[in-house]
Amino acid sequence: MHQLTYGDIKAATDRISGRVRPVALAQLDPGAIRTAHRDPLDDDRQVAPCEVWVALEFMQHTGSFKARGAQNFIQAHRDAGSLPDAGVTIASGGNAGLACAWAAQQQGVRATVYLPQTAPQVKVAKLRGYGAEVRLVGSEYAEALAACEEFAAATGALASHAYDHPLIAAGAGTLLEEIHAQLPGLDTVVVAVGGGGLFAGVATAAQHHGIRTVAVEPENCRALNAAIEAGRPVDVTVDSIAADSLGARRTSAMALRAAQQDGVQSVLVADGEIVRARQALWDHRRIAVEHGAATALAALTGPDQPVADRDLPTRPTGPSRTYRPGSGEKVCVVLCGANTDPADLAHRPAAH
Amino acid sequence: MHQLTYGDIKAATDRISGRVRPVALAQLDPGAIRTAHRDPLDDDRQVAPCEVWVALEFMQHTGSFKARGAQNFIQAHRDAGSLPDAGVTIASGGNAGLACAWAAQQQGVRATVYLPQTAPQVKVAKLRGYGAEVRLVGSEYAEALAACEEFAAATGALASHAYDHPLIAAGAGTLLEEIHAQLPGLDTVVVAVGGGGLFAGVATAAQHHGIRTVAVEPENCRALNAAIEAGRPVDVTVDSIAADSLGARRTSAMALRAAQQDGVQSVLVADGEIVRARQALWDHRRIAVEHGAATALAALTGPDQPVADRDLPTRPTGPSRTYRPGSGEKVCVVLCGANTDPADLAHRPAAH
Repeated sequence: MHQLTYGDIKAATDRISGRVRPVALAQLDPGAIRTAHRDPLDDDRQVAPCEVWVALEFMQHTGSFKARGAQNFIQAHRDAGSLPDAGVTIASGGNAGLACAWAAQQQGVRATVYLPQTAPQVKVAKLRGYGAEVRLVGSEYAEALAACEEFAAATGALASHAYDHPLIAAGAGTLLEEIHAQLPGLDTVVVAVGGGGLFAGVATAAQHHGIRTVAVEPENCRALNAAIEAGRPVDVTVDSIAADSLGARRTSAMALRAAQQDGVQSVLVADGEIVRARQALWDHRRIAVEHGAATALAALTGPDQPVADRDLPTRPTGPSRTYRPGSGEKVCVVLCGANTDPADLAHRPAAH
Repeated sequence: MHQLTYGDIKAATDRISGRVRPVALAQLDPGAIRTAHRDPLDDDRQVAPCEVWVALEFMQHTGSFKARGAQNFIQAHRDAGSLPDAGVTIASGGNAGLACAWAAQQQGVRATVYLPQTAPQVKVAKLRGYGAEVRLVGSEYAEALAACEEFAAATGALASHAYDHPLIAAGAGTLLEEIHAQLPGLDTVVVAVGGGGLFAGVATAAQHHGIRTVAVEPENCRALNAAIEAGRPVDVTVDSIAADSLGARRTSAMALRAAQQDGVQSVLVADGEIVRARQALWDHRRIAVEHGAATALAALTGPDQPVADRDLPTRPTGPSRTYRPGSGEKVCVVLCGANTDPADLAHRPAAH
């Protein structure tokens, strides 16, 4: 198992600079995000509001941060002379597949993408739009994956992974470098976690800069949280509105290792809070993101947990449901993707 | 007629600073916008690509730049002690009405908004959401406007205008000040024009800084272009997909005066180009804007005009259909609003 280092992130930053879009940031209104509750005897006048920014990474090529990892993966192999004639291959119709197809096109490399025959036509069309050869195999994802692996073995094509590869994670981590350069004094970065590629990259870079990482997952799609609890990657059941982008059954050992560093906090949010956060981004900022991206914000906008009875001898310490920034804390929430149908965001008259 | 000065913009900037959201900018990909055609004998290697930015002003309060003017209007009256107990009133269910209601709520002032009885329930609900009293009068906008004027005369309420007021235009012009501060060396700003409030404010500030202003209108919604042609504000017929935000029948004398300054260029774009520009913003950047905002970008993304025959003794000089930045030119396109239903943006399978 590769332990991701800050050197990996730096190398990725140098490698993909100019090949991905620099992230744009926007500040949320002062007071929009609640600052942490304090003890009743604290002097309220000393509570400075937190300063919360959003990183508009959904404007990235292919509509998600995945373009960074895919670009880093292919470019590193090109630099090393290990890019085969057969190109790259992946089994994914989601953000990772799109990013792989796009990066291959950018680099003039063949991409062969495997999907089950049940894949929606719109996904297939998007992949072909990036020049990928799409092969539809079997009725389930596992069959498409098996065909992909068979293809890689037979042709020598380079198999890409959605998240469990140090080059993919390091590419994603370049995002934190850009955020840090634009926001000196940043205290905390908040990211949604699926398989853990974005998380591992961001947390590794963040730790180097002394920045806290809040890792947010849907409560029923918690591969990282379960791994932290078990001390090793374990399978979880996946059942969340954000599953299309975050729905990994098992996190990587690399992501777990990053989560075991100092300064990482795991938060689980309910699907209802994700939906509300996504709607609030549209209602208040006209930002349309996928549920996976809204998952990160939901950690800051969700309701307070019921206060545990302080007199109980042992309080149950369940997972955190929110992250409340402290007085004056400077926070950046990564809005990592917008491959979403925005049709449900506008409020239309009920009569229609 | 008030001639807008840079002093008005500076005063507005000081007045509303901290009360509106600073604009965020994002750079378009190098090569995404075509640089001007050059003569065949020019050395192509000397053509540097233009550098084009978009100003994400649609993330402003109420979803459009109108919040700036409304805030400036009410704050200036408060500072002058001329804010009546009856508050402010406006006849608008569009962006101006929303902004007026919001600014009044921010300032703790009553807002009374007049609309025809045919106004969609969703607009009424949004206005009430900002605390406005909504009055539905008559079946057409003219009747609502008459009732609004009557109300102002009877109660002393301050009548706000959507665009034809120096405080409204100066407030909008603060946007150029922010863009200029973030983009030193800016050559050109591109804005969509409806009644001309945003245009007048931006062009006045831009001229002060030596920046060119490109004023873009739909070809069948060209109040400013017609005024420039006639030498005075004249009525035009309004028939454009962007009419909901840009559909003014007549521009203001103030906007015409600003258009007659040096460094202003008028461009007319077809509705089809507006639709394509709006779709491209979603497809390539996951930005969902209203057609009025996409109108500005359409000037840069539309097709080249047919080349006139150079041998003809007199070439017809119709209005410009595009704006092509020159070699190395630094351009900022204002994306001014997103009060839109994004339902049509995502490509869905035709079968559904």
